[in-house]
Amino acid sequence: MTTWIRYTDAAGVPGMGALEGEQIAEYRGSSFTDAHATGRHLPLAGVRLASPCTPTKVIALWNNFRALGEKLGKPAPLHPLFLIKPGTSVIGTDAVIRRPARYSGKIVYEGELGIVIGRECTNVAVDSAHDYILGYTCVNDVTAAELIAEDVNFPQWTRSKGFDTFSCIGPAINTRFDWAAARVVTVLDGAERQNYPLSDMIFTPPEIVSHLSGDMTLYPGDVIAVGTSIGVGSMKDGATVSVTIRGIGELRNTLGA
Amino acid sequence: MTTWIRYTDAAGVPGMGALEGEQIAEYRGSSFTDAHATGRHLPLAGVRLASPCTPTKVIALWNNFRALGEKLGKPAPLHPLFLIKPGTSVIGTDAVIRRPARYSGKIVYEGELGIVIGRECTNVAVDSAHDYILGYTCVNDVTAAELIAEDVNFPQWTRSKGFDTFSCIGPAINTRFDWAAARVVTVLDGAERQNYPLSDMIFTPPEIVSHLSGDMTLYPGDVIAVGTSIGVGSMKDGATVSVTIRGIGELRNTLGA
Repeated sequence: MTTWIRYTDAAGVPGMGALEGEQIAEYRGSSFTDAHATGRHLPLAGVRLASPCTPTKVIALWNNFRALGEKLGKPAPLHPLFLIKPGTSVIGTDAVIRRPARYSGKIVYEGELGIVIGRECTNVAVDSAHDYILGYTCVNDVTAAELIAEDVNFPQWTRSKGFDTFSCIGPAINTRFDWAAARVVTVLDGAERQNYPLSDMIFTPPEIVSHLSGDMTLYPGDVIAVGTSIGVGSMKDGATVSVTIRGIGELRNTLGA
Repeated sequence: MTTWIRYTDAAGVPGMGALEGEQIAEYRGSSFTDAHATGRHLPLAGVRLASPCTPTKVIALWNNFRALGEKLGKPAPLHPLFLIKPGTSVIGTDAVIRRPARYSGKIVYEGELGIVIGRECTNVAVDSAHDYILGYTCVNDVTAAELIAEDVNFPQWTRSKGFDTFSCIGPAINTRFDWAAARVVTVLDGAERQNYPLSDMIFTPPEIVSHLSGDMTLYPGDVIAVGTSIGVGSMKDGATVSVTIRGIGELRNTLGA
């Protein structure tokens, strides 16, 4: 198992590495899959974590958990339902979520599991989808909720979720993660708001990668946010939301004014 | 005025340049805005045109022409309505549109004007939006139409329009183009199917760039397809669709089986 991170060091230089307790083993390479260890180690406490990957696109699923679907009265879909959030929406842990300049409405957190793609893939079968997954991370799929239904003829999913800083990703990528046994725990200013099992997913990660790789080519570093479950709510300016998945870590972000 | 193109030459080497009649003036640089002429010229007939830009995202507008909105009974929106098509969906003129492996339904053409971003921008005012536009191109916004309404709870705009090869862009970028006087003409296997004036747009290009740059940061090379008007229809396997805008050129693509 490797726990991949990206960071900027005390001098502001970006780097990548594998987490080993409180130490980082430095790696170099164009991506995690072709990276090599330099032999150098540095303390985790001395760096600032960045998003562990730089996706060309973030694909966000809707209605992929049975408990939330039942609560909303929505039947399970036949194919993953999704929208694309642009790469410009990505931030890492401890970075500030910025309220859009022209939006004063409700901003909502959604704690989710993120699949990180490891190898370019198109039309992958479910059975081999695992080979194209680098690992798993935490996602806060932030949403300007009042924009979704602003136009009765066209739900504005992309606009409401695509703002700069609205895809919080991190703190790390775990390459050997047993999602079926894990839970997503979302805490808003110290109060637990979400605590749901990933086993409640409608489409599993291999099924998601198979379906989506038939809808478009997926690239290394691309992130699929697998959807959220019950407990979604709004965050006030200044509020801090953490999304924790045991085995991956805690993703923590504050909504700036 | 410059007419920018990208191409691969007879040896398969990619290049960029400015069209000068039947000749190409070769340029080098990381983008058109910082490119310099090498002094070398080559004949247009000896190259294969590529998409004139490589967008990080294609933003596609819906319901942005009065004539089509009236036909569909949809009121003008208050803000541009859009979805994101991934960079993997982009092809140039004369490249083949590929039917998705797992889809046998109707595939629709939509002839459109494309705005090409020239400089990174966020929260741009309408009055200065022009400074961030590199120029204009033709777009065929291809759609797997039967997927849009497959799930009654979530219109699948991104899925239906995001397949590889479903964003045809080209043949060139015209940096000084009077869109208000131009028309989009779409021809299916020799028969004219669309011929509509760009002056019928609800949101004009400066308004679109202003609004969308408030929704997300736009990067050089990003393309905004400004929406289509009446005359949209389906193309059978093997059909050829051309989208022509006088002053930009003819974008021509065939749907492969």
